Amino acid sequence: MSNSPETVFDKIISGEIPCHKVYEDEKVLAFLDIGPLCPGHTLVIPKERARFLHELSDSSAAAIGRVLPRIARAMLKATGAESYNVLQNNGSAANQAVFHVHFHIIPKIEDTGLGLKWRPLTLIPEEAQRLSEVMRAELEQD
Amino acid sequence: MSNSPETVFDKIISGEIPCHKVYEDEKVLAFLDIGPLCPGHTLVIPKERARFLHELSDSSAAAIGRVLPRIARAMLKATGAESYNVLQNNGSAANQAVFHVHFHIIPKIEDTGLGLKWRPLTLIPEEAQRLSEVMRAELEQD
Repeated sequence: MSNSPETVFDKIISGEIPCHKVYEDEKVLAFLDIGPLCPGHTLVIPKERARFLHELSDSSAAAIGRVLPRIARAMLKATGAESYNVLQNNGSAANQAVFHVHFHIIPKIEDTGLGLKWRPLTLIPEEAQRLSEVMRAELEQD
Repeated sequence: MSNSPETVFDKIISGEIPCHKVYEDEKVLAFLDIGPLCPGHTLVIPKERARFLHELSDSSAAAIGRVLPRIARAMLKATGAESYNVLQNNGSAANQAVFHVHFHIIPKIEDTGLGLKWRPLTLIPEEAQRLSEVMRAELEQD
């Protein structure tokens, strides 16, 4: 995990690059996105350097999880939004642009905010059985 | 929070409705989505009944955060995907359909998975200053 390359977020964490800071604790930093999908669009990042969520330590992941509701409450108060999306992208194909884990908290006000294309497939029972068995086995070993 | 109405997820937690279970601990349940955007699409939910992320307790939110990387690793192994999105929707306007907090882990394989429409605005410094100040003040009181 410490092999992850430095990104602009390390410079924001160190203070070398300024940000509109919203929250900070020992493990987490939150600040406004400079390319917001809606005013109040906030990024929540671990101070631990990790490219992808699946590379992040339990303790950093728990610390981020704990503060997401608190930051969402503050965003709702500040923006007046009533709806929002939380999004975390992993890999270029999944729209990740900065290779340091970040959770977007994106207010949804009228037609601003996150646009989603939802094209559900049908769950195939045999495939679901196989996938869930493999995932349970992996999680028991992890 | 206990005023949240019962949803289908309470019946999945209680076992009244079956699911393709992936993971379970004291506070968290994960299972395959029955309308997957890509095979392996997984839902991670708190056992605590809460409609929206901003209503969820610190302890349930931390418990979910902690296991997201573990479940993502298992999903990657089971599906062979290399990219994925984590998404959590709050409010009908933000595409929430079941009013019990749930995090989607959605593999991105070729053109399946989550489609995103990304239409960034420009950050207005004065507005960002005001929003970040209000959010910091709210978070200090929370």
